[in-house]
Amino acid sequence: MKVFERLESEVRAYCRTWPVVFKSARNAVMFDEEGGRYVDFFAGAGVLNFGHNDPKMKEALIAYLQSDGVSHSLDMSTTAKRRFLERFNDVILGPRGMRYKMQFTGPTGTNAVEAALKLARKITGRQRVVAFTDGFHGMTLGALALTGNGLHRAAAGVALEHVIRVPFDGYLGRGVDTLEPLRRQLEDPSSGVLPPAAFVLETIQAEGGVNIARAEWLQSVQALAHQHGSLFIVDDIQVGCGRTGTYFSFEDLGIEPDVVCLAKGIGGYGLPMAMLLVKPEHDAWKPGEHTGTFRGQDLSFVAGTEALSYFEDTRFAESVKAKGARIRERLVRMLDAHGDRAIELRGRGMIYGIDTHSPDKAKAVSAAAFERGLIIATCGPSGRVVKVMPPLTTEDAVLDEGLDLLAGAFESAGGK
Amino acid sequence: MKVFERLESEVRAYCRTWPVVFKSARNAVMFDEEGGRYVDFFAGAGVLNFGHNDPKMKEALIAYLQSDGVSHSLDMSTTAKRRFLERFNDVILGPRGMRYKMQFTGPTGTNAVEAALKLARKITGRQRVVAFTDGFHGMTLGALALTGNGLHRAAAGVALEHVIRVPFDGYLGRGVDTLEPLRRQLEDPSSGVLPPAAFVLETIQAEGGVNIARAEWLQSVQALAHQHGSLFIVDDIQVGCGRTGTYFSFEDLGIEPDVVCLAKGIGGYGLPMAMLLVKPEHDAWKPGEHTGTFRGQDLSFVAGTEALSYFEDTRFAESVKAKGARIRERLVRMLDAHGDRAIELRGRGMIYGIDTHSPDKAKAVSAAAFERGLIIATCGPSGRVVKVMPPLTTEDAVLDEGLDLLAGAFESAGGK
Amino acid sequence: MKVFERLESEVRAYCRTWPVVFKSARNAVMFDEEGGRYVDFFAGAGVLNFGHNDPKMKEALIAYLQSDGVSHSLDMSTTAKRRFLERFNDVILGPRGMRYKMQFTGPTGTNAVEAALKLARKITGRQRVVAFTDGFHGMTLGALALTGNGLHRAAAGVALEHVIRVPFDGYLGRGVDTLEPLRRQLEDPSSGVLPPAAFVLETIQAEGGVNIARAEWLQSVQALAHQHGSLFIVDDIQVGCGRTGTYFSFEDLGIEPDVVCLAKGIGGYGLPMAMLLVKPEHDAWKPGEHTGTFRGQDLSFVAGTEALSYFEDTRFAESVKAKGARIRERLVRMLDAHGDRAIELRGRGMIYGIDTHSPDKAKAVSAAAFERGLIIATCGPSGRVVKVMPPLTTEDAVLDEGLDLLAGAFESAGGK
Amino acid sequence: MKVFERLESEVRAYCRTWPVVFKSARNAVMFDEEGGRYVDFFAGAGVLNFGHNDPKMKEALIAYLQSDGVSHSLDMSTTAKRRFLERFNDVILGPRGMRYKMQFTGPTGTNAVEAALKLARKITGRQRVVAFTDGFHGMTLGALALTGNGLHRAAAGVALEHVIRVPFDGYLGRGVDTLEPLRRQLEDPSSGVLPPAAFVLETIQAEGGVNIARAEWLQSVQALAHQHGSLFIVDDIQVGCGRTGTYFSFEDLGIEPDVVCLAKGIGGYGLPMAMLLVKPEHDAWKPGEHTGTFRGQDLSFVAGTEALSYFEDTRFAESVKAKGARIRERLVRMLDAHGDRAIELRGRGMIYGIDTHSPDKAKAVSAAAFERGLIIATCGPSGRVVKVMPPLTTEDAVLDEGLDLLAGAFESAGGK
Repeated sequence: MKVFERLESEVRAYCRTWPVVFKSARNAVMFDEEGGRYVDFFAGAGVLNFGHNDPKMKEALIAYLQSDGVSHSLDMSTTAKRRFLERFNDVILGPRGMRYKMQFTGPTGTNAVEAALKLARKITGRQRVVAFTDGFHGMTLGALALTGNGLHRAAAGVALEHVIRVPFDGYLGRGVDTLEPLRRQLEDPSSGVLPPAAFVLETIQAEGGVNIARAEWLQSVQALAHQHGSLFIVDDIQVGCGRTGTYFSFEDLGIEPDVVCLAKGIGGYGLPMAMLLVKPEHDAWKPGEHTGTFRGQDLSFVAGTEALSYFEDTRFAESVKAKGARIRERLVRMLDAHGDRAIELRGRGMIYGIDTHSPDKAKAVSAAAFERGLIIATCGPSGRVVKVMPPLTTEDAVLDEGLDLLAGAFESAGGK
Repeated sequence: MKVFERLESEVRAYCRTWPVVFKSARNAVMFDEEGGRYVDFFAGAGVLNFGHNDPKMKEALIAYLQSDGVSHSLDMSTTAKRRFLERFNDVILGPRGMRYKMQFTGPTGTNAVEAALKLARKITGRQRVVAFTDGFHGMTLGALALTGNGLHRAAAGVALEHVIRVPFDGYLGRGVDTLEPLRRQLEDPSSGVLPPAAFVLETIQAEGGVNIARAEWLQSVQALAHQHGSLFIVDDIQVGCGRTGTYFSFEDLGIEPDVVCLAKGIGGYGLPMAMLLVKPEHDAWKPGEHTGTFRGQDLSFVAGTEALSYFEDTRFAESVKAKGARIRERLVRMLDAHGDRAIELRGRGMIYGIDTHSPDKAKAVSAAAFERGLIIATCGPSGRVVKVMPPLTTEDAVLDEGLDLLAGAFESAGGK
Repeated sequence: MKVFERLESEVRAYCRTWPVVFKSARNAVMFDEEGGRYVDFFAGAGVLNFGHNDPKMKEALIAYLQSDGVSHSLDMSTTAKRRFLERFNDVILGPRGMRYKMQFTGPTGTNAVEAALKLARKITGRQRVVAFTDGFHGMTLGALALTGNGLHRAAAGVALEHVIRVPFDGYLGRGVDTLEPLRRQLEDPSSGVLPPAAFVLETIQAEGGVNIARAEWLQSVQALAHQHGSLFIVDDIQVGCGRTGTYFSFEDLGIEPDVVCLAKGIGGYGLPMAMLLVKPEHDAWKPGEHTGTFRGQDLSFVAGTEALSYFEDTRFAESVKAKGARIRERLVRMLDAHGDRAIELRGRGMIYGIDTHSPDKAKAVSAAAFERGLIIATCGPSGRVVKVMPPLTTEDAVLDEGLDLLAGAFESAGGK
Repeated sequence: MKVFERLESEVRAYCRTWPVVFKSARNAVMFDEEGGRYVDFFAGAGVLNFGHNDPKMKEALIAYLQSDGVSHSLDMSTTAKRRFLERFNDVILGPRGMRYKMQFTGPTGTNAVEAALKLARKITGRQRVVAFTDGFHGMTLGALALTGNGLHRAAAGVALEHVIRVPFDGYLGRGVDTLEPLRRQLEDPSSGVLPPAAFVLETIQAEGGVNIARAEWLQSVQALAHQHGSLFIVDDIQVGCGRTGTYFSFEDLGIEPDVVCLAKGIGGYGLPMAMLLVKPEHDAWKPGEHTGTFRGQDLSFVAGTEALSYFEDTRFAESVKAKGARIRERLVRMLDAHGDRAIELRGRGMIYGIDTHSPDKAKAVSAAAFERGLIIATCGPSGRVVKVMPPLTTEDAVLDEGLDLLAGAFESAGGK
């Protein structure tokens, strides 16, 4: 660890939470250099939906490397990219009746969000966008303006503007229509609020504390956006790619976004990739208006193509739902045993948040978990929520092992 | 190609310039699906300094994959990352007497620039930064404000502010001190110009048209920055990592940046990676203030570590200089034959720009080159400059072949 | 009128509503050049609280002119200014137990608001301010950002930012706590909303449609501001100086603003003057930080000093209340006769708004009134509210005359 | 003075420089309460071009007051306003062959500048404007962004953006073409500088230190503006209305602004008034888009109309030129006697700046002058320039008296 302290910037964070040097990993288990073994309920902050080092993807990557396949191609056409485009269309979009153009941006989520903002502003000729409390959309200046986190905002060093901030669903209490004030303002020419370029949201705010929007609320956001000529943009970066039991987080929610931002899980193997889905009628780009050196990562295309196989039939989705139910059942049991009624459990598919309402408590749980061999992170305001997010492919035995470790950690650290 | 037209966004650009589907590549030669063979003088926009599919890196990648090494780790500590940190320190920083902390950002150049801007603003408590005409620093909102390109700026859809724009060296004629107006303004409390947070520049503006700053001018920028308590930031993303014959583009130029932005070539194999070098006294980050999901790409660390071997002794640097001289000699000959005195040749190391002063002409040269089997791109204002940027590892025979193809293209397309 | 059309800019507005040339005026009656006589229920948009050409002020002005008193003095000390300062302190501030420093800004309301914003930002080191739907604070860029009116905002030509927009009291229905969403956000470090520099409001939004805030709502705004270290600023420009029956509009409302903006009525005779009242502990200005050529208008001080005599005892306040009751009674009767239950009457003291919910209807009422010899303007969103605002000194007979004319106009023009 | 310290804000400035209470004034002489007599070389910061309490204007004002003329009228039509419009057209615009529409804004210079900026942005659809080093255009947020003064800028509390700052004529040495860098950037699509909405300048920067632009430089600014579709706006607020010996400061300079901003001297008697002159083809306002409560000040119209009489024939202009020559001759003599070659004298008409290059020295001169009975202010960066600006109507004897007092002050205070 000395090497990291000596040579790496003070900005590093996760390595302080888990102060070991990781060496290898398989599916939901990681190993450190000393042979320490850890169940992974963090999944690379939502990237490793298909676990570490999925054998089929690994095989495909090695074969591609051995064949001297093109590894870096910007937006040139390559065999690997075509396969990805076709498979994504055939396996994901087609069966769902979704018509979208695909746009590969620089391979980080924040880059996809920046591109979506540009497109919405270009199409509408408007500047401001609606974003929501506790939203998380990235670290670059355009996306950061949408992000709620105060530590990250303060680091901008300049004013973050062009955003109308609206409470997310549930923020003002269950069932409160948080859109009503904005709805009224958009109808009033003297309200000081003009129709925005876009509404940008996550259906489940993962970093924001696993806050889950109701279908009817999401539908009303979409309706309000369309009523005022604004784009409706879903940032599905953390909870898309299967996390909720469907490929997109919004499949059963009665909405149809104009633009979808994808990243994290889409590269399959943890390899960087980001993609916008844009409704054909909104694909208003001129060639080259938004670029990015690493927008053509062929290893990511190769692994990402392989990852799509999980969605060819319904077995995987069913397994995610089953495992999700297993998680919920165990967590409910754990919290019942714990007895603190103030603690809330929120989740869907295979993402769960345990809102302790205490940053110290959540941090203590995470630390106690690590001592026991469980990697689990916190999220939400000041980190008060413990986020349970194992790979979707976690074997049931490992899942149970991790949940037991968590219960132990909770008992020891979360004590009243 | 139909698949791309049907499924991919209109934003795609390079695939329109080179309308074939690439399949494989080795060093400076690419192959399309139909068996077409192309000499590559583009090098992935400066990423592929060590050519396509370098055998040693490939071997290291495959071995790492086979060992189930961690592939994605955010800013957790991993064996792959430690090796990279140590090797970069031992091979690059140490021998040059450079003391910097390393910070891995989201693996795109624009992300490194955004992080550098945040840091400069945080340290100084100031908002504005000095950027230069024709500079290119990225596509996300913070970096885009520094970028000069009008097409890209217009796509922002919001005002791009907090920037003081200054003419780059040579912009106003050879030897003109372009800093003088700003120097005077910074001494005048009524000038409307307060000291900035940072001066950000490329020593060679690659995308901007291969504009090369003189050492004394760069020194005077650094001096002016330090005189006013501003950070001096070098964006070495396109011309660092060996492109000029030294590892950093600025090694022989008598400057010592406070922050260096690296990306593109640093991942070795075309794999995404971006890194800031920050002087220890400026490493003012709080943990986690700037993050990014893909800031820990272990395959990039593995290939990038291998790439550092090229810099263990002076042979590689000498070979780059020799090849650079070979390029210059051939291009001078070509332009002499061509006889148009208005065409300028600019370059250093293995990057050359042929400024035709005509976007149409440059485009025609690029198209004629492609017909002949040469991949070469344009840059500069409206794309009027043909950019010669082969992999640094290009064999002499292939280099000569490419230069001959270019001469043929120039003759046919560049005709008066 | 031809002269105006030929020589004056198209921006002129009121002269289109009342297309005659006014020549003279006395108290609440104006005369045009042709001898036409008009009852004035407009009062110079709230400036002429003491009617046109008040005889005592006129006398004082003439005497001052004849004595060659200084007429223009920036922030030099003059006898006229000292008299105003002393009288304002003795007649207004002292008896109310209010301790404020006085600051004369450029003599327009918008200038006072701009100064207040600078001061709040300086003191707090924060940039954003809270403003309210339908607020009206001026036309210069800083104040315009607070103003809700869409026509005026669009004319800015640049983004109007640094504002958090919150629904005014009553905007979401009677009694709804419109602050709750903001209150929650200010407690949440991830909400994207940091504590603002100030909350700026009118207690009665006059231009905004005569929207009247309840005392408890105003108190809760003040409490929220102070809880988060923000300044609480009341823009009393249109409804201060006696309009509501007390000198300040907020005297009986249980609030104590940190800064009060005054203009319009304060110059007494319609002469330009603007003043900030600043709590001594917030008087953080450096000398000369905010200036303005016309900040020392001695004729305005002379007339304004005379105007303060109205507030030496309670008779004037009582008369305002009595006249206000007279207005209300007559308007209620008029609306009852009219029978349209959708029309709302709102008002306090001697400002009333008749919200027709129809811009066309309100405009027709104003036009029909003018035909009958009554000057009355519209306000509110798209001008749907008829604003009844006679001089506070209007004689009862003239008041009745005007109200009868209005009733006639309403009957003829407002017919269903 | 105690009253002012106790009751007025710390922001007050001039009253600290001249710590007496002024009571009356006639032409170029002021009197304090104690009977102290002062020659006025300050002229209300350029407002009192026609001296204090001009007898004809006084007479007209009293007559107007006695006739119960309308005193406050927003943009309603009044007899007084029509007279002003007609006279301004007949006496000023017509004889000069100038065709402009007149627009009355809120009666402060900054308000006129804000309106001009809005109009330029509206017409061009662009946001940024070019402003110059040491320019002074006002204190409200839009105008303040153009102003160079660091103390005033810092007080904004928010970033002042949308401005391209260019060195004024002479800033980089006599005869240097300070526009060349911008000219080049405006032709380069990758320079990061797009064509602006407007170029805004003073022909003589009065607050900025009496910096005088050459005719050819002004012409080249106008040419550059028009070449790129930008408006050319002259802020003639301080040096218009006769100060330079012609009505407009730019009459003999070969330029024809698209918009002229006037204020200060235009109200004649020191009464507040501001006016835009807008070329008819640029009068693109919608009715009411830019408003302001005090935009119809009839007392200002009355006195301002009277002031125009000075320009009915050439005698006044000739007298200004003669007095200007008298000033120059005496100041040259004074500086010769003083012998410090570093001190520069700059001026035209009846405005002169003595640039001591030392804020302390200039301040000492001003203080020593006041002791001797001369009111004179400083300007320029950090106040290092003594500004000689008597009323244009100053009698020769008083002028000589003031110049002698200045010479005495200079000798005593400015000693080497």
